Order: sequence, then structure tokens, then C-alpha cells
Amino acid sequence: MKIYLAGPDVFLPDAIEIGRQKVQLCARYGLVGLYPLDNAIDLAADDASTQIFRGNEAMMNEAGAIIANLTPFRGPGADGGTVYELGYMAGRGKLCLGYSNDPSTYADRVRHFTEVTSAGNRLVDADGLTVEDFGLVDNLMMIHALDQYGSALVTPRQTPADIWRDLTAFEACVRMAAKRLTSAS
Amino acid sequence: MKIYLAGPDVFLPDAIEIGRQKVQLCARYGLVGLYPLDNAIDLAADDASTQIFRGNEAMMNEAGAIIANLTPFRGPGADGGTVYELGYMAGRGKLCLGYSNDPSTYADRVRHFTEVTSAGNRLVDADGLTVEDFGLVDNLMMIHALDQYGSALVTPRQTPADIWRDLTAFEACVRMAAKRLTSAS
Repeated sequence: MKIYLAGPDVFLPDAIEIGRQKVQLCARYGLVGLYPLDNAIDLAADDASTQIFRGNEAMMNEAGAIIANLTPFRGPGADGGTVYELGYMAGRGKLCLGYSNDPSTYADRVRHFTEVTSAGNRLVDADGLTVEDFGLVDNLMMIHALDQYGSALVTPRQTPADIWRDLTAFEACVRMAAKRLTSAS
Repeated sequence: MKIYLAGPDVFLPDAIEIGRQKVQLCARYGLVGLYPLDNAIDLAADDASTQIFRGNEAMMNEAGAIIANLTPFRGPGADGGTVYELGYMAGRGKLCLGYSNDPSTYADRVRHFTEVTSAGNRLVDADGLTVEDFGLVDNLMMIHALDQYGSALVTPRQTPADIWRDLTAFEACVRMAAKRLTSAS
């Protein structure tokens, strides 16, 4: 089975090396990992961003599953591009697996970025906007999409020393994907 | 045509009133707006978040289109739940329209939250993570999904005085949806 490897990993300085490690881990379980940076894109082209979109979409259409790295990125929640891809794969009824290397709840994460107070029965941020408070690690749409289309979000007990490079939770997702594949065949 | 009205509007203190206005605007163009808060959910129930997920998904399945409010929410990019829903609707091949009431580029937005510097040919944030720099308003996956499945992201020339309640860009999306409907029938 081909698995689309979604995540803000592509924004790391060593993005290519992380992708190599992820693809290698997939191979160890008999799976083919498709990593966005494996698409050949001319970054100098005027339509580079459209080329990347099309390349990623083609990879998703080819894949039978997604493993999404939902580790919070540049704010309290997951990377938007990754979340879009999770939604796309759920919409197409593919197997959806995901992990976050930060096990804290969304509400606790928001507290790192802004003051959070109670307003009646709601938690609100400094702008008066409701802070989702269901004890989940991120927005309920992503969390329950995983429950519905794959398996519960994988998180470590504690945030690993290198949140962007620890692949323990990722490997747990690969193992699940391999198991599903075996039981389906 | 039924249109799913996605956005962090549901987190506003006057979320119900905004939803009412959006549904009313849809009706003016002969469209039926489906707003997440119209689902009856028992928020005291243990599985309240799952009920919300299922209610939203049922609404999306019923709708022929989505209008996503991608105005940056609690960080440099759009709300995760909304982005997930845009991906889901794209995956199902539905008409995807969206707007952001903040016309600034993603890279400029990131500069409000963290120091952005150049590292070789990349822009990087304070953590050394690449900042997408294609002159787009948000992550390329969402922006080009709109190009592919609907129409280009609608933005105002200038950020309106009330970024959460100005419905000019929203109305432009409703108008487009109505036009597509007429030309398709």
C-alpha cells in the first residue's frame, strides 16, 4: 500500500533527510511512503506553488492512506496544509492515521499564546473567541476524523526531546497501516 | 443548492447571530445555508465533540458546496477545523469557495508572530522552519484547492474595520455560488 506522508516536516531545514527516514520506516513494514518533496518542482517557475499543489494531490490520489503529522506548527494547532490534506483523504474515504508529538490539550496549548479566561460556560482567548475545551489535542474535526476514518490520534506520553525528529509516534502509525493492510488482504 | 458555511465564526461570542445573517444572505440568492450551530447538540454529553463532528459531516454530505471563512484565526493561518472541512469537500469533489478578511500575505502575517529571516534561498522563522513565500494569503494547499475546485480566494482590498463580522467578501462568494448554480441548471 502507498501511504501519503503529510506534515510540516517539509518546512524543516533537514526536510529531505526526515522524508528519507520516513520512507525507509515505511519500507521496513512493507509499505511505500510518498513524500511531497519527492515531486520534482521547478521552484523558480511562476506557477511553482500550483505545481506543488498538483504534485501533492496526485500523490494523495495514488495513495491508499495518509499519515498526518499534526504536531502543533507555528501556533496552537496543526499545520494548515497538513490539515487540508487530512480532510481531502477523509473526503475520498481513504485510511486516515495521524500523530502529534505534543500530547497537551488544545486549551493548554492556547494558554501558551494568549490569556485564556472563563466567560459563562465558555473558555475565551484575549479576543473573546471561544477556545475549544473538550480535552482534545486539537480541533475536534481532525481528531474525530481520525477516529472515523482510521484510528485515534497517536501521541507520546511526554513531548520527546526533539519534537520535529522523533519518529516513535510516526512508526506506531506505520505499524497500524501495515496491520490494516494485512487484515484487508 | 445547499451550502455548508464553514468558519471560525462559530467561536465568536455572537456566533448564532452571525450564522443567522449568513443564512439570510444565502436565502437572498436562492441558496440554503447550512450553519454548524444549527445542529442540536447536547454539550453536556460525554460524546459532545463526536456529536458535533457527525453533525458537521452530515451537513457537508448534504451540501453541494462550501464557503469557507479562511480569515486567520489565533495565529498566522486559517482555523484548523475550517481547513479540514475545505479539504473534505474538495476530496468529495464539491464546489469550494472561500474568503479571508485579511488580504496580507502569509509571510507578512508570520512576521507579526515571530522573527522572520533569510537562510540561503528560504525565509525561516525563529525556530528555523521555512516560511512559505509564494505571495499567497495562506498555505498553498488551501489557496490552490479553491482555484481547482471553485474560484480564487476572495479578499477585500483592505482589512475591514470588523474582521469577524464584515460579510462583503462572504457575500461575493454567495453570489458566485448562485451564478454557478444557475449556469449548471
